[in-house]
Amino acid sequence: MTRLTLKQADAIAGGTLAKGKELGLAPLTVVVLDAGGHAVVLKRDDGSSIMRPELATAKAWGALGMGFGGRELARRANKAPGFFAALNSISDGRMAPVPGSALIRDGQGEVIGAVGVSGDTSENDEACLVPAVLAAGLTPDTGDPL
Amino acid sequence: MTRLTLKQADAIAGGTLAKGKELGLAPLTVVVLDAGGHAVVLKRDDGSSIMRPELATAKAWGALGMGFGGRELARRANKAPGFFAALNSISDGRMAPVPGSALIRDGQGEVIGAVGVSGDTSENDEACLVPAVLAAGLTPDTGDPL
Amino acid sequence: MTRLTLKQADAIAGGTLAKGKELGLAPLTVVVLDAGGHAVVLKRDDGSSIMRPELATAKAWGALGMGFGGRELARRANKAPGFFAALNSISDGRMAPVPGSALIRDGQGEVIGAVGVSGDTSENDEACLVPAVLAAGLTPDTGDPL
Amino acid sequence: MTRLTLKQADAIAGGTLAKGKELGLAPLTVVVLDAGGHAVVLKRDDGSSIMRPELATAKAWGALGMGFGGRELARRANKAPGFFAALNSISDGRMAPVPGSALIRDGQGEVIGAVGVSGDTSENDEACLVPAVLAAGLTPDTGDPL
Repeated sequence: MTRLTLKQADAIAGGTLAKGKELGLAPLTVVVLDAGGHAVVLKRDDGSSIMRPELATAKAWGALGMGFGGRELARRANKAPGFFAALNSISDGRMAPVPGSALIRDGQGEVIGAVGVSGDTSENDEACLVPAVLAAGLTPDTGDPL
Repeated sequence: MTRLTLKQADAIAGGTLAKGKELGLAPLTVVVLDAGGHAVVLKRDDGSSIMRPELATAKAWGALGMGFGGRELARRANKAPGFFAALNSISDGRMAPVPGSALIRDGQGEVIGAVGVSGDTSENDEACLVPAVLAAGLTPDTGDPL
Repeated sequence: MTRLTLKQADAIAGGTLAKGKELGLAPLTVVVLDAGGHAVVLKRDDGSSIMRPELATAKAWGALGMGFGGRELARRANKAPGFFAALNSISDGRMAPVPGSALIRDGQGEVIGAVGVSGDTSENDEACLVPAVLAAGLTPDTGDPL
Repeated sequence: MTRLTLKQADAIAGGTLAKGKELGLAPLTVVVLDAGGHAVVLKRDDGSSIMRPELATAKAWGALGMGFGGRELARRANKAPGFFAALNSISDGRMAPVPGSALIRDGQGEVIGAVGVSGDTSENDEACLVPAVLAAGLTPDTGDPL
């Protein structure tokens, strides 16, 4: 198993924010967690609101916690709302089952971390992280086929 | 960026309660937070029930946390109830997505705080805070156009 | 039993902050709770740091919680540090056993609320609240004889 | 009052980690918070252990919460251990009263954020953040004179 490095995480975070600016999105916050769910890099752009760090973290942490990217979490939450209400408590508020997150996989397909983004619509949040993970030479698993 | 002063916050809180009395509403509680979500002034009128401070705070904090006034939060919560259930946990119970709150913007449009009101209907709560913020020379952003 | 009114609580909070300015103290935060430990008025002066609301609340709440003013709480905490460490958890972080708080008693000696102040030294915090409670026609019980 | 920008916070975080490498220190984690105590940038270097993000955050948050840099918090904690045990609870575990943090002041002396560092000794942690804040054109207030 490869270990996600600060250099990679910093590139993913920076690339995500740059993509958001390129697309003219609302100010974003991005969090990159390692495989254990612990923050490696967080960046909150100027004007991104005060709960965005917790929300981006919950997108990434929820993906790691259950082992699915945000798209798949969102589908499951729609089918089983009571279960996901329980997961809110079980995870102590670290679960946001919406698009805008991805597991980060290495060349062998192993999960080495996750990234969560918040600030614009969930779809736009996701559109920023995917190219940033790819540019870092890693594979984003959003819960949908690439 | 201006910093919200105690004098401004006190005027907003006092003006909100005065408007409630003028309209003959139920006893209100009003909380004014700074841009970081920390209380500057809280006032609970005689007879306003004991959870009103937490509820008014959650209205104001939720607006700051997500960067939208209560009207917009309410619309989003209606469309995405599962996501807002997650936000309840992520925010540790500081998110009340109903009308009765406003971001407070300065002359440049920057968010310098938020106000939350609880005690009567959400619409009546909001009707009291809007003139109070305007009278303080600031702009209330309820999530709807003024 | 008299019920503490918003008018009285507002006078106590305003009087406390005015006394702090008169004495040239650091910026203060003052919280006035009713007999049930629920906030009636909170005021944080410009420049008073961001945890002061929680700290002033914990001074007042701790006094109500145990039924002693801050001076007596401080003496007991010094004698029984392990017990007060437990009280930190038991009170869910609403206990600050230091001077700078007082039970508020009415003309019959009944506890109708409490006030907590934070921002300068504990002794200076207390020096501001005592005259403010007296000026409101009520009796401050700091845990020491008046 | 200036608002701390992502650009400034990123420079402070990057400069702190670079200084740690230059001095041959253990792997560091650095967190830069805005004036409201909300994360702007977090960076955890390769090999920095998993609680470092929470610890660096608690160093910075505690400084903002009380309005003193880590050196002054450490002095006060040594004099009043029971009070700081209470503050642990009051702050919900966001208070680490040791060196290795600084308030960040702008040219007018206003607090616009804070930085916390963890990973090596508290003194070494601090030695990394001071030049990084200065290089960003801002003033670090560690609780001791510069």
